[in-house]
Amino acid sequence: MRVPPGSLRILSLFSARHLVTLQRRGLCDAPMRLVQFHRHSDGGVRVGVEQDEGLGVVDLRVFDPSMPSTMKELLELGDEGLNCARRAVSSGQCVLKHSDVRLLSPILAPEKVVCVGLNYRDHCLEQNAPIPKEPIIFSKFPNAITGPYDDIILPSESQEVDWEVELAFVIGRQGKHIKEEDALSYVAGFMVANDVSARDWQMKRNGKQWLLGKTFESFCPLGPALVTTDAVRDPHKLGIRCLVNGEKVQSSNTDQMIFKTEALISWVSKFVTLTPGDVFLTGTPPGVGVFRKPPVFLKRGDVVECQIDQLGSIINKVI
Amino acid sequence: MRVPPGSLRILSLFSARHLVTLQRRGLCDAPMRLVQFHRHSDGGVRVGVEQDEGLGVVDLRVFDPSMPSTMKELLELGDEGLNCARRAVSSGQCVLKHSDVRLLSPILAPEKVVCVGLNYRDHCLEQNAPIPKEPIIFSKFPNAITGPYDDIILPSESQEVDWEVELAFVIGRQGKHIKEEDALSYVAGFMVANDVSARDWQMKRNGKQWLLGKTFESFCPLGPALVTTDAVRDPHKLGIRCLVNGEKVQSSNTDQMIFKTEALISWVSKFVTLTPGDVFLTGTPPGVGVFRKPPVFLKRGDVVECQIDQLGSIINKVI
Repeated sequence: MRVPPGSLRILSLFSARHLVTLQRRGLCDAPMRLVQFHRHSDGGVRVGVEQDEGLGVVDLRVFDPSMPSTMKELLELGDEGLNCARRAVSSGQCVLKHSDVRLLSPILAPEKVVCVGLNYRDHCLEQNAPIPKEPIIFSKFPNAITGPYDDIILPSESQEVDWEVELAFVIGRQGKHIKEEDALSYVAGFMVANDVSARDWQMKRNGKQWLLGKTFESFCPLGPALVTTDAVRDPHKLGIRCLVNGEKVQSSNTDQMIFKTEALISWVSKFVTLTPGDVFLTGTPPGVGVFRKPPVFLKRGDVVECQIDQLGSIINKVI
Repeated sequence: MRVPPGSLRILSLFSARHLVTLQRRGLCDAPMRLVQFHRHSDGGVRVGVEQDEGLGVVDLRVFDPSMPSTMKELLELGDEGLNCARRAVSSGQCVLKHSDVRLLSPILAPEKVVCVGLNYRDHCLEQNAPIPKEPIIFSKFPNAITGPYDDIILPSESQEVDWEVELAFVIGRQGKHIKEEDALSYVAGFMVANDVSARDWQMKRNGKQWLLGKTFESFCPLGPALVTTDAVRDPHKLGIRCLVNGEKVQSSNTDQMIFKTEALISWVSKFVTLTPGDVFLTGTPPGVGVFRKPPVFLKRGDVVECQIDQLGSIINKVI
C-alpha cells in the first residue's frame, strides 16, 4: 500500500512501526500465520491462513482447489503458493471458525528435524557448560512431531521427562552452502516448539547420543502457526517463556541465542541440502527441570505452555 | 511348486537347499530382489524386480500400471504390492537389460535412517570399547542416501572420511512396541550399506554427537537390491566384507552382531513407531580406517566395495 504524503500527519499518531506494518500489508508481502488443521467434520490434513491468532481460519483449498493440502507441498510451490495464501486471507472468504477446526503442527513429515544444543548463553551458565564455539547439532525423527494443543505422552521407558521451550523455524526453499547474509531468505517462517526431552535417555544411556531421549512420540509439539518471516520484526529479540501448570519456569529472550537463525542455516547447510519443510529447533533458555535443585520432571496431568512474543502459545497436557 | 514324489530321485542330484529354493519359488512366497532404478531414456524413479543379481530388471509399473513408482509406496501396499512383484518377475515380461537402467538406492526418502553403533563384538575389541549392554542408536538424515554405484563425495569440511560396511534392513509394515519373536515379520528385506563416516566430525566436534559426521550428502550408499526376507537363509550368518581399491579391509560375519535384527526392531520400537521404508544400518565389523595404525582415510579416486553374502555388492568411487 502506498501512503499518500497528506496522510502522514494522521499516521504520525501511530507508531512508525505501525506504518511499516500497513505498508507491509500490501497484497504482495502481507505477513501471514499459516496453519495446518483438521475440520471436525472430516479428518484430512488441510492448509489454512489464520486471520489473526485464534481468529478464523481461511481454508486454502476451498479458496483455490488447485492448491495443495499440506504445508510442505505449499512451501514447495514457492511464491505461487504464498501469494495464493495472501489472496485467500485478504478475500475474507472460506473462513472457518476456530471452534470448527483442530490445529495440527504447521508442518508434518519434514525430511529433517534439526535441533541445536546449548544455544542460549544463560542456559550454558545454568549448567556450568562452556559457551560452544560451534553449534551442537542433533536431531529428532519426524514422528516426534505433534500439534500445538495435543497431549505429551509420558513413555513408560522414562522417569525424567523435561520441558524446553524453543524458537523454531521452517525452511522455505532448497539450498546448500548458504551464506549467512542470504540465510533469512531461506526461512519460510517461525513458530513455537517444545523440545521435550527424556533426560535419563539423553544424559545417561544410549552412549550419550541424545537422539533416543529426544524422539519419543509426541516429544516435539509445534505451532500454533507458521508465522511468515516478514511478520516477525526481529526473531532474535523475542520474549520466550515456558509455564508448567501456570508457573513460569523458563523466561528469557531470543537475544540470548549464541548461534542465530542465519548462522545455524549457514552451518547446517555445509553438511546437508536444506529442503522446504525442514524444521530447526534453535535451543532452549535456562529453567529446565533437570537442572533444578532438586530436579523436577513432568508428571501426568501437568499442563505445559510455551510462549514466544509475536508467535503465540502452544499448550500441551501431559498424559 | 509342488514336487511330485516320483521326481525325488532326480532331485536328490540337487542339494536339499535347492529343493527348498524350488518350493519357495511358488508364486505366493518367491524370494525377490526388489530394486529402484532410472531408465537411461527417462529420469523418473521406478520400482523393479531383478531376475537375479545383475540380470534383467522387470519394470513393475509397465507390468501393472496400477502399481506405484517408488519402493516406499510399494511397501505401503503390503502383500498386494509384493504379490504383484512376484507375478511380474515370474511372467518374464517387461524385462529391461541391466545396461539400460541405472540402479538407485532400493529405498529413498524414508522417514528414518536408524543406525547402530558398536554392534560387532570384534569391532568393540578393535577399539578396546566395552561390549554395549544396550544398542547405541544414532541417525543419518535421509538426504545422505545414495545409490549402489554412485560416487561418495568427499566434503571439503572433513579430512577423515572412513568406510563402514553394514548389513541394512528395511521395515515393511508399521509397528510400535514390537516383540522380538514377531520382529522379523516387520522386515521387508535386507541390503548392503556403507555407513560412510567423517571421523573428525563424529569423534572430535559437534559435542561428540555423531549426527553431523554421519550425514554428509552421499554418506549412505545402499543396495544393490532389497532382498526379501524369505530369500535370506539366516541374516545373522552372512560373510561381510569391505574392499578399498581391491584390498580387503573389513572381513567378518554377521554372527558377530551383538544386537541382531529382532532385538534392534524391538528396542527401537519402544521409542518410535516404525513405518514402511524405515532403514536400519546394523553396525560395522572391525577394519575401519580410523583404528588402523597409522589411521587411513578415503581419498579422491579410491573405490570402495561393500559385499555381503546372498545380498550382493555395492561399489562407490570416491570423488
